Parts: sequence; C-alpha cells; structure tokens
Amino acid sequence: MSKHTIIRLSRYKNALYRFESLGFVKVFSDNLADAIGVTPSQVRKDFSMFGLSGNKRGGYKVDELLAKLNEILGTNKAHNVIVAGAGNLGSALIKYKGFEKENIKITAAFDIDHSKGERAGEIPVKPFDEMQEYVRQNDIRVGIIAVPDMAAQHVADVMMAGGIKGILNFAPIRLRVDEGIVVNNVNLALELENIIYFICVPMGSGKGIK
Amino acid sequence: MSKHTIIRLSRYKNALYRFESLGFVKVFSDNLADAIGVTPSQVRKDFSMFGLSGNKRGGYKVDELLAKLNEILGTNKAHNVIVAGAGNLGSALIKYKGFEKENIKITAAFDIDHSKGERAGEIPVKPFDEMQEYVRQNDIRVGIIAVPDMAAQHVADVMMAGGIKGILNFAPIRLRVDEGIVVNNVNLALELENIIYFICVPMGSGKGIK
Repeated sequence: MSKHTIIRLSRYKNALYRFESLGFVKVFSDNLADAIGVTPSQVRKDFSMFGLSGNKRGGYKVDELLAKLNEILGTNKAHNVIVAGAGNLGSALIKYKGFEKENIKITAAFDIDHSKGERAGEIPVKPFDEMQEYVRQNDIRVGIIAVPDMAAQHVADVMMAGGIKGILNFAPIRLRVDEGIVVNNVNLALELENIIYFICVPMGSGKGIK
Repeated sequence: MSKHTIIRLSRYKNALYRFESLGFVKVFSDNLADAIGVTPSQVRKDFSMFGLSGNKRGGYKVDELLAKLNEILGTNKAHNVIVAGAGNLGSALIKYKGFEKENIKITAAFDIDHSKGERAGEIPVKPFDEMQEYVRQNDIRVGIIAVPDMAAQHVADVMMAGGIKGILNFAPIRLRVDEGIVVNNVNLALELENIIYFICVPMGSGKGIK
C-alpha cells in the first residue's frame, strides 16, 4: 500500500468528521472528491481497494464509513506516543488538540532540561536519560523528534534502541535509521521557504545565475 | 520549476549550513547526496539546472554555494509573514527559531481573542478584524493559518482579500483559493496517523474488510 493511498484515506476520514459535524448522514464519492481535491473515480478506486462499498445508488453512510476507515487506519485503537524535546515546538505538540480525535495520545515528553515541565501542561516532562527505558517498559512504538538538529540523530538512535518503530521528525536533517523504521519528516521552515520561492522570486530569475 | 526541485535546493542549503558549522570549506556532490538522500548525479543535475557549477575537481565552495542557493531561493532577502491563530500551535510558530535562519520573520499574529498576547513573546497579537488592513498596509505576501478547521476557509478568504499570495495551512482542510495562490498544507495528525498505519496495522489487515 503506498503512502499516498493511506494519506488519501486519512483525508477522507477528516472530511467525513466535518460532514458528520454538519449533520450529514450519507455522502457520495463526489462529496469526498470535492472535499479533498481528487476525482470521484479516485475515491471509488481507493475504497474498492479496501473492500469499502457504497449502497446501490452510490452513497455511503457517514458513520459506517468512518468506523471502517478508523479500522483500516488503526485509529480505532489508542496509540501512545512520546515526544523528545519540550521546547516551544515540543510543548505545542503536547497541547495540540488535533491528535486526540485520531486516538493518538502523547503520554510523556523527554528533555535534557526536564525543568521545562511547567510548560507542557498535564504531560510529565522527564529527563532524557529515562527515555529509552520508558519506551521499552511502556511498549511505545512511535516517537516525535522536536529537538535541535544537532541532537536529532542521537535522539533517533536512543528511540530505536528502546524499540520505537516510527518517527515523526521535525529536525531539518535526514535521519539514518535501521531497516523497517518508518520516518516522516516535517520541515516547517522549508514549507515556508517553498511558498516564498513560488510567489516572491521573479519568474526565471533562478536560471542563469553564475 | 517543480516543487520537488525547490525542496531539494532547500535541503542542500540546510545541509550546507550544517557542513559550515562543522568547519567545512568545500563539499562534493557526494557529500550533499548523502546528506539529503539522493544520488550524486541528481545533485549535479539540480545544480546545473540553475547554472551552479563546481571547480574542475568537482568540489563546491560552501560559502559561495550557500550564497547562490539563498539568491535562487529568495532567502537572501527578508520576508515578513503573519500568523492567524495565536493558540498553542500559533504561539509555538511565533517562537520557532528555525525561521530566522531562512530570513523569514513573523511580524504579527492575529486572533479573535487577542488577549492571547502574553503567550506570543515579542510579537504583537492583534484582533483578527485588523488582519486584512495590516496585510495590505505592510505588503505581506505570506500567511500562516493556525486556526481551528472550521475557521480556516474564512481566514484564507480574508488573507487573500488583503493581498496574500501564499499560505502555509495547518488546518486539516482543503482550502479553496484563487488562481495563482500557493498553498502548502501541513497536517500533523495525518503524519502521525500515517506512521501508525505502516508500523502498527498488521500486514494485509486493511484488505477484505467488509
């Protein structure tokens, strides 16, 4: 299954939650297509790949479809996640409301300076030295890296040593990881820089620079 | 120029800053290739597309290459950016250190509840009603949306009315924007959910669900 397919399923699910909050009982592939910006045939293709079928007239019941998508995506079960780094970004992630809906719970944060605790709301900020043992004891599979770039590889190594299999990495470096470890990178500065390039740099000025 | 090419240029630049901080004076395409995970021939191809050439022995001077990449990417000039939403995510972005290096400065934040000011450090948090006029008067071209999803489209409309051309959107919805407006989406929950799918969902369990 490709990453892009799974991302589309997550997007359908987000759209369905919005439809549900607007009182929709039933949706059509056209509704979902419009909501996430693909063709209706792409929606039907994605759904048929996972054995999701609508009724005869092509509609889907919102609640049933949501339950099935949550089952497929694994978000019908709770997943515990840790954060390394309790600076501005780390503590914002700890307080971020958007994870709860997906059944994702950040259970602990780790920082070299664990006095950062007061900034992280209800989640304990523990000394970084305790991270590996915590990961092992609590069978944590997913970690978020929100430390400065120079520390990120070491944090990733400790996470993997503890048993973590998936990393969401906010440091602007390419992590070297063991085979089978899943890494998704989010580089906020790069996203902004990319927008700036496309709107602010005069057309063609990139060409021919000596 | 494709988005992917520009993203690679940004990544080369990030790698070069790290090399520079380690005392490197010169780098080779192999170093850059290793740092960002592409082939050396991809590096040379990307550079030749922008007229960047090394010396006879294939090396590049770090400082010269950085200056040229900053020129190409437009990050040799300062860019002012605003944030809509001064909640946890918005205030973390305001304090985020990673933007400064790219010459990106967040000059103001806007929120319906502008009493959130004390959380946002040195940047003023202004009433949302003033955003459109601020954007116009200060010729702001790039805006960040860090508001709840139900408010995001309205915020985008007001940004565009003020003259904003590029949006970094953290709300998990697809924004409807005018032609020529550049939107990059960052969906934090979706990134985590995607990792969880690939590491936690048993192989093949997505198939055949009725």
